[in-house]
Amino acid sequence: MQNKDKRSLLGIELLPTEDIVSILRLSRRFQRSRPKPLFKDKRIALLFYEASTRTRISFEFAAKVLGATTTLVHASASSIEKGESLLDTGYTITALGADVIIIRHPSSGAPHVLAKHVQIPVINAGDGMHEHPSQALLDAYTIQQRKKKLDGLRVAIVGDIFHSRVARSEVLLLSRFGCRICLCGPPELAPEVATTLAPGVTVTRNIGEALRGADVVMVLRIQKERLASLQLNVDEYIANFQLTAERLRMAKRDVILMHPGPIIRGMELSGDLADMPQSTILDQVHNGVAVRMAILARALGIKI
Amino acid sequence: MQNKDKRSLLGIELLPTEDIVSILRLSRRFQRSRPKPLFKDKRIALLFYEASTRTRISFEFAAKVLGATTTLVHASASSIEKGESLLDTGYTITALGADVIIIRHPSSGAPHVLAKHVQIPVINAGDGMHEHPSQALLDAYTIQQRKKKLDGLRVAIVGDIFHSRVARSEVLLLSRFGCRICLCGPPELAPEVATTLAPGVTVTRNIGEALRGADVVMVLRIQKERLASLQLNVDEYIANFQLTAERLRMAKRDVILMHPGPIIRGMELSGDLADMPQSTILDQVHNGVAVRMAILARALGIKI
Amino acid sequence: MQNKDKRSLLGIELLPTEDIVSILRLSRRFQRSRPKPLFKDKRIALLFYEASTRTRISFEFAAKVLGATTTLVHASASSIEKGESLLDTGYTITALGADVIIIRHPSSGAPHVLAKHVQIPVINAGDGMHEHPSQALLDAYTIQQRKKKLDGLRVAIVGDIFHSRVARSEVLLLSRFGCRICLCGPPELAPEVATTLAPGVTVTRNIGEALRGADVVMVLRIQKERLASLQLNVDEYIANFQLTAERLRMAKRDVILMHPGPIIRGMELSGDLADMPQSTILDQVHNGVAVRMAILARALGIKI
Repeated sequence: MQNKDKRSLLGIELLPTEDIVSILRLSRRFQRSRPKPLFKDKRIALLFYEASTRTRISFEFAAKVLGATTTLVHASASSIEKGESLLDTGYTITALGADVIIIRHPSSGAPHVLAKHVQIPVINAGDGMHEHPSQALLDAYTIQQRKKKLDGLRVAIVGDIFHSRVARSEVLLLSRFGCRICLCGPPELAPEVATTLAPGVTVTRNIGEALRGADVVMVLRIQKERLASLQLNVDEYIANFQLTAERLRMAKRDVILMHPGPIIRGMELSGDLADMPQSTILDQVHNGVAVRMAILARALGIKI
Repeated sequence: MQNKDKRSLLGIELLPTEDIVSILRLSRRFQRSRPKPLFKDKRIALLFYEASTRTRISFEFAAKVLGATTTLVHASASSIEKGESLLDTGYTITALGADVIIIRHPSSGAPHVLAKHVQIPVINAGDGMHEHPSQALLDAYTIQQRKKKLDGLRVAIVGDIFHSRVARSEVLLLSRFGCRICLCGPPELAPEVATTLAPGVTVTRNIGEALRGADVVMVLRIQKERLASLQLNVDEYIANFQLTAERLRMAKRDVILMHPGPIIRGMELSGDLADMPQSTILDQVHNGVAVRMAILARALGIKI
Repeated sequence: MQNKDKRSLLGIELLPTEDIVSILRLSRRFQRSRPKPLFKDKRIALLFYEASTRTRISFEFAAKVLGATTTLVHASASSIEKGESLLDTGYTITALGADVIIIRHPSSGAPHVLAKHVQIPVINAGDGMHEHPSQALLDAYTIQQRKKKLDGLRVAIVGDIFHSRVARSEVLLLSRFGCRICLCGPPELAPEVATTLAPGVTVTRNIGEALRGADVVMVLRIQKERLASLQLNVDEYIANFQLTAERLRMAKRDVILMHPGPIIRGMELSGDLADMPQSTILDQVHNGVAVRMAILARALGIKI
C-alpha cells in the first residue's frame, strides 16, 4: 500500500497546491465524461458519526455510479455503540477489504488519527470544527467554473465562521491562490484571531465593508440554538448580517452567491436569495459528485 | 425535462384512467420477463420521512434489480435534522443527479409540493392521510390477476378508513372501474362523509351488510393506540368488525381477502385468516415489485 | 424450493460435520479467487434487529461483491415498529422476492422459528444468547489457516461465556473435531454447567490452568454494564482474568490469540495485546468475508 498517505484527503492545510490543481482538473474530466465502471471490485466504506445528506449521497453516488461496492455505517446501529474505539473500527473495516474509508466525525482530528493507523486511504468528510476539504474543493471548482479563475478574487465569507469546518477549509484553499478574504460576523462567530488562518485574511463587523467589491460571497449556516447558547439575539443577527438582495448589490455586478448548505431561509440569507441567478448553491451540490469522483479516484490510485 | 409532471405519480385522484391501465399492462410485462439493466445510469433517491418495510424494499428491489443506483435518506441522520426545508432537500437531491425521487412523508400533500418545484418526477410512496397510489395500483393488479377484471366488482373495505391513505387511493381507483364499494367500521373510523369520495360508495356499521355479495374484501390495519385516542374499546371493535373465517363466508364463494399490511393478527383480522387460500396478502406484496418497476419505468421515460 | 432446510444455517448444533468441512473448503476457494458475479439476479435481505458492524458489513460485502441485490432492514424505521410479527416480516420479505434472509435477533431461536415457516433459506447472524454460527465457522477457518488443522487442539476460552452466543457456537464446532476446550471465568460468566455443552469441555477459575498448553486462546468481550448487573468488580475481573502478554506466555509458544470483536482494550485484554503477532483478530475479520460468501453460495444453491 504505497503512497497511502498521499492518497488520503484529510484537509486542505497539508494538501499540496499541485494536488488541489490536479483534483480540480480530474473533476472536470469526470464532469464531462459518461460514467464507466472504473471502481469495479473496489470497496468503499462510508463511516458517518454525524448526520449528513448531501455529502453522504454525493460520495455514495460518486462511488456507486463508477461501479464500487459501498457500505454505510452510522454511529447508531453499529459496534460503535458497543464501545469499540474508532481505531478498532478502522482496523475492522480495513480487514473487511475496504479500499477507502470516508469518515465524518464530530471530533476535530479524528480522520487524521484514523489515517495514521489504518493501511488504506482516509477521506475526511467533515471533522468537528476543523476541516471539510471536499466541500472546499467543490467550491473552488464552482468558482473556477463561473469566474474562469481562482487567482486574486475578493471573497466575503459571512456567518458562523468560528464553528465552521467549511470556512476553515475555504480560507485555507482560496488563500493559496491569492484570494483576498474578508470574514464577517459578530465577534463570537467571526473572532479577530481568524485573520491568522492565512495571509490576506481580514475580519469586519460591517457587512457593507465585506461585500463591497466582492467577486464571491459565501454565506454560512446560522443555527438558532448556537446563537442562543452564545446569548446572541436572532433579530439583531438578521438586522446586521443576513444576506439580502439589497445588500448583495454592494458586491461586484457579476458576484456569485455561495452556500455549502443546508440553508436556513430567512436566517443567514433572505427567503428567496438562494433562487436568484447569482446563486451557485445547486451548482455546488451538482459539482460535488464529480469532485468526489476525482477524490475517490485519487484515493484508489485509479487513472482516467 | 419534458412531460415531467406526466411522469410523476402523486395520487390516483389526478391520474388519468388510461395511465392506470397502461401501468397495469406494463406491470404484467415486468412480472413475466427476466430483469434487464433497463435503469442503468439512472439514479433513484428514496426519501423516507416515515417508517416503512414493504414499500421501501419493494421500490428498492424494483430499482436495483433493473440496474439503477439508489440512495436511501431517512429523516433521522440527514440534513432534515438540521432544519432544511423539504423543498431544499428536493433541490439538493435533484442537483446530486437523481432522476426520480420516491417520497414517503407524514404530511398530506408533501409529494405534490415537492413535484411542483423540482425538475424531476416525484413518486408518492404514501403521504399523511392522503394517498398511497402505488399500493392502490398493486391492489388493482392483484384483483385483476385473480378476478380477470376490475369492472363492476363489489368491494368491501373494513377497518380504519378515515386515517388510511390506502383506503382513499383504493376507493378513487376502483370507483373509476365502476366497482361498488362499501366502507365498514365505527363512525370514528368510517365517517358518513366518506361516501363523497367517489360515486357508488356506501358506508355501513354492519359488517354483514358490507360482506354480503362481496367479490373483494379489503381489511385495513387497526392501531390500538388510535382506538385508545378515539376512546374506542378494543374488544368492542373486535366483536363488531374483526374479519373472521365465519364472517368471510357471508361474501361470495370466490371472494378474495386483501390487506395492505403490516397486519396485526387478532386485531383487524382473526389469527389465521391471512394464511387461508382466499388471502392475497402475499400476492399483493409480490406483485408490488413488478408494479413499482412499471411506475419507475414510466417516471424515467423508459420503454420496454 | 427443494432442500431449503439443508441450505439454511441456523446453528452449529444441527449442522452435519461434513457440511462444516465443505463450507470451510468452499471458503478457501472464495478466498483465492477473484470475485465473479455468481449471485447475479439474487436478492438478499439483511434483517438486523440488533446493532452490528462487522457481521453486517461482512455479509453485505460478500453478497454485493458477488453481484447480489441486497436490502438492509433495521428494527427501527420499519414495519417492525408498527407491531408486525417476525413471521409476517419474513413472509413479506419472501414475497418481495428475497432468495435468502440473513437475520440477527435478540431472541434465542428467532431464526429457527423464521426458517420453519418461510420458504427460503435463513442464515443466523446471531440470535440472543444462543448461536452465531458464521462466527464459529470463520474462527475455525482462521485456526485451520494458522495451525494447518483443527483436530485435537487445546483451546482456552476466557471471558463472558455464559452470555455469549459466540462461545456456544465455538464449543459446539471445535468439539466436533476433538479439540479439548477449557472455559475460564468467574462462576457467573463461566458456570459449571457449561461442561455439558460438549464432550471434552472443562471449566476453571484459574487462568493459568486454562492457558497452560493451549494452542488457541479465545478471549470474549466483557461488558462493564454486565459485570455491574452481576455485582462483579471490574478491577477484580481484570486482576484475575484479563489476558495480558505475560499471561499469554503460559500457553504454547506458537499460540494464537483470537477475539470475535468488538474488543474493549484494557478490559478483557490488555491494551496492546490485539496488535501482537499472535493475534489473529483482524485475520478473523478478513476471513469472514470469504466464509460468508461460502455460506451464501450454499444457501443459494450455487456451485463454484
